[in-house]
Amino acid sequence: MSYPNSQPGICYTRPPGTNVPTRTAQLSPVSTTPDVTSGPTGTPAARNLTVLSGGMGGARFLQGLLHGIRAGSIPGVARDAQVTVIANTCDDWWVHGLKVCPDLDTVMYTLGDGIDLERGWGRREETWSAKTELERYGVEPTWFGLGDRDIATHLVRTQMLEAGYPLSAVTTALCERWLRPAYGDTLTLLPMTDDRVETHVAVADPDTPSGRRVVHFQEYWVRLRAQVPAETVVFVGLDQSTPAPGVLDAIAGADLVILPPSNPVVSVGTILGVPGLRDAVRATRARVVGLSPIVGTSHVRGMAEQMLNAIGVEVSAAGVGLNYGARGNGGVLDGWLVDERDADQVARLEAAGIAVAAVPLMMTDHDATAAMAAAAVALVTPA
Amino acid sequence: MSYPNSQPGICYTRPPGTNVPTRTAQLSPVSTTPDVTSGPTGTPAARNLTVLSGGMGGARFLQGLLHGIRAGSIPGVARDAQVTVIANTCDDWWVHGLKVCPDLDTVMYTLGDGIDLERGWGRREETWSAKTELERYGVEPTWFGLGDRDIATHLVRTQMLEAGYPLSAVTTALCERWLRPAYGDTLTLLPMTDDRVETHVAVADPDTPSGRRVVHFQEYWVRLRAQVPAETVVFVGLDQSTPAPGVLDAIAGADLVILPPSNPVVSVGTILGVPGLRDAVRATRARVVGLSPIVGTSHVRGMAEQMLNAIGVEVSAAGVGLNYGARGNGGVLDGWLVDERDADQVARLEAAGIAVAAVPLMMTDHDATAAMAAAAVALVTPA
Repeated sequence: MSYPNSQPGICYTRPPGTNVPTRTAQLSPVSTTPDVTSGPTGTPAARNLTVLSGGMGGARFLQGLLHGIRAGSIPGVARDAQVTVIANTCDDWWVHGLKVCPDLDTVMYTLGDGIDLERGWGRREETWSAKTELERYGVEPTWFGLGDRDIATHLVRTQMLEAGYPLSAVTTALCERWLRPAYGDTLTLLPMTDDRVETHVAVADPDTPSGRRVVHFQEYWVRLRAQVPAETVVFVGLDQSTPAPGVLDAIAGADLVILPPSNPVVSVGTILGVPGLRDAVRATRARVVGLSPIVGTSHVRGMAEQMLNAIGVEVSAAGVGLNYGARGNGGVLDGWLVDERDADQVARLEAAGIAVAAVPLMMTDHDATAAMAAAAVALVTPA
Repeated sequence: MSYPNSQPGICYTRPPGTNVPTRTAQLSPVSTTPDVTSGPTGTPAARNLTVLSGGMGGARFLQGLLHGIRAGSIPGVARDAQVTVIANTCDDWWVHGLKVCPDLDTVMYTLGDGIDLERGWGRREETWSAKTELERYGVEPTWFGLGDRDIATHLVRTQMLEAGYPLSAVTTALCERWLRPAYGDTLTLLPMTDDRVETHVAVADPDTPSGRRVVHFQEYWVRLRAQVPAETVVFVGLDQSTPAPGVLDAIAGADLVILPPSNPVVSVGTILGVPGLRDAVRATRARVVGLSPIVGTSHVRGMAEQMLNAIGVEVSAAGVGLNYGARGNGGVLDGWLVDERDADQVARLEAAGIAVAAVPLMMTDHDATAAMAAAAVALVTPA
C-alpha cells in the first residue's frame, strides 16, 4: 500500500459556513423528574435513539445513557427505547494479520461488561502471552497491545471477513455474545461502513525526502502518544465508502440523534464523513444534540486537542460546536451541551443558531453520565 | 473447497516389489565407543545428516541424535555434523484463519527447548485465554487446542505467508529464534514442500449419501482420537507439490539419511510422497536407515496402527520396514532398526534385502535415544 504522502486523499477541512446568521436557541430546563413516557410537556417519548460513537468517550456515555433509560431517569425517552450505535471504524487497522476495530470493540466490551475498566480498552482479566511471544520473535509493532482474549475477537472477525461476511454482519455475530444477553433487541451496534477506511496522520520527519511521514492513527496515538504535531489527518478510503446496512435508516428513523463527547475529528468527524451520512443527519426528522468533549481548554480524555489543532479548529466547547455547525446553517446540530465551566461560550453558540445548555459534563459515574444524557435530551425536546 | 469424497485424489497404496530376492544384510555391531571422526573401521565420519521427520516421534529422536552428536557418542558422525530436518507438512491446516504446521512446530519447539514436555506438543507455560474466548463465541473447532503463545507463532507464519513468503522462508524466520541461538548453522529445518498439502481421512458416516465423510487429519486425530476406522487416507495436493528449496540438495548431499520412528504413513510416507523426493532418497549416495515406530504389535506413540490398517500394511516392525522397501528392490531403505522384542522379524527383513539390527528402541531419555541413533548409524556404516 502506498501512502498518500504528497497527495493526500481526503483531508479533513473545516466546513464553511460556521459564521452565519443566528436564530433563537431552543433552550429547555434540565429536568430531574423521572418521566419515561413523555417529554416535559407531554411530547411523545423518544423511542428510537441513534448515537454516533467513537471508543472510550462514546462507550462511557452509552453506559450512562442506557443506565438512565433503564432507570427511567431520562425524561422524554421511553424506558423501552431502541438504541442504535453507529460506531467509528476509521481507527480500524490490520495488525499481525488481524483486523482490529478498536471503537467497535470498546463499545461492545464496555456495554457487554467485558471491558478492562482501568485501561478503558481491551478485555478484563486479560493475559498477554501472545504479545510477549510476538516480541520474542521481534515482530513489529511491539508497541501495540494485543491481549490474548482480545485476539480471539480479532480471529473471529478476521476469519469471517475473509469468508466474505461484511463487517456489519461480523459485528452482529460478535454482539450475539456481548450485547444480546443483556439488551436483547433494544441495542444495536453498527459499524459506520463495511468498507475499509483508515485514519492516517502525517507527521514531520526530516529523514524522508518529503520531510514528512504518514503513520496509521494507531501508531500516532499509541506509539507516538500524540506528542508530535499532526500536520495532516488523512481518512484513507472514506470518500469512497458507503454507509453500512442500517446506518441511514437508523438516522432517518430516529427520534433523537446524539453525538456523545467523542473525538470530533477522528471519531464523530469520520462517521459524518461517510458519504451520505452527514446529509442523513441533516435531513432526519430527529432532533440532533451533541455533548462537548472539550471542557475548558482541553479535552477530557483522548486527543481531541491535537486533532483539532491539525484541522485548525479552536480547542474549546464553542470551537467544536461551531465546527459541527447548526442544522439551520448547513451543520448538524440542533443542540450542544457544554460544561458549566464553559458557560461563557453559550452566547457564541446560540448566536450561531445552536441551542445550548451548560451543565456538569464529567462522566464520573453512570448517574452523572445519565444526568448529562438527560440534559442533552431536554435541550432538544420541544417545550 | 470440495472434498474428494467419491473420487479420492492421492491414496496411499502399498508400493509393489516388497517380496523380492534377498541380498546379504550389512550388519554392524553397535559400538558404544565415542568416536567422532570416523566410523568403526576408519570410514570418514558423516558430516551431513538428513532426517525425514514427523512431529513428536521425530522431534524426540532428533533431540537424542543432536545430544549424541554433540557428546561425540555417535560413532561415524562428526561432532560438528550438519543436520537437516525435512519435516512433514501434510498435517498442516488452517484453523481460525491461522496456518498451523504441527510437525514443523513440534520439531522447532522441541529442539528450541520451548515444548511442553508433558503434552509433547505446543508451548511450555502456555495460557489458553484465546481458546476460552473462542469457545465463548461458539466458534468451531472447539476441540483443537490453540494456546496463546502458540498463536503468536501462527500469527507470524500466517502474516508472512499472506505477505507472499513461502513456508520455507517463514520456517527459516521462525527458526532464527528457536534453533539458531543453540545450533547456529549446524541445524536446518525445512518443510518438505512450500505447497499446500493436507492429509484428509475418510470415515464411515451413515448420515451422508455416500456413506462416508472426509475429515482433516487433525479432526481424525484430535477430535475422533483415531477411534473410528480410517477407510481411506487422502493426501490433498501432494501429487501436485514440489520439494521445498533445499530439500533435494539435502538428500543428495547427505552422508546419511535417517527415517526416525515417525508415522510411516502420515509423516514419513507423505514426505516421500512429494514428487521427486522418493527418487532423491533412492538416488542419494548417502546410506539410508530407518527406525521402526512399531514395537511388538503396536505403535509406541501416535497412530501408526490405524494408518497402517487403512493402507493394508501389516502392523509390525517388519511390515513397516518391508513397506518402505529395500533400496536394492525399489524401496528406500539400506537399514532398518527394530526393537529387541522384534528380533524374530529380522530374518524376514534381511530376506528382503534390508540390513537389520534389533536393539532397545524406547526413547526413554536423550542417552537412550542417542544409543538408538548410534545403532542406526552403525547399521549402515560400511564395516
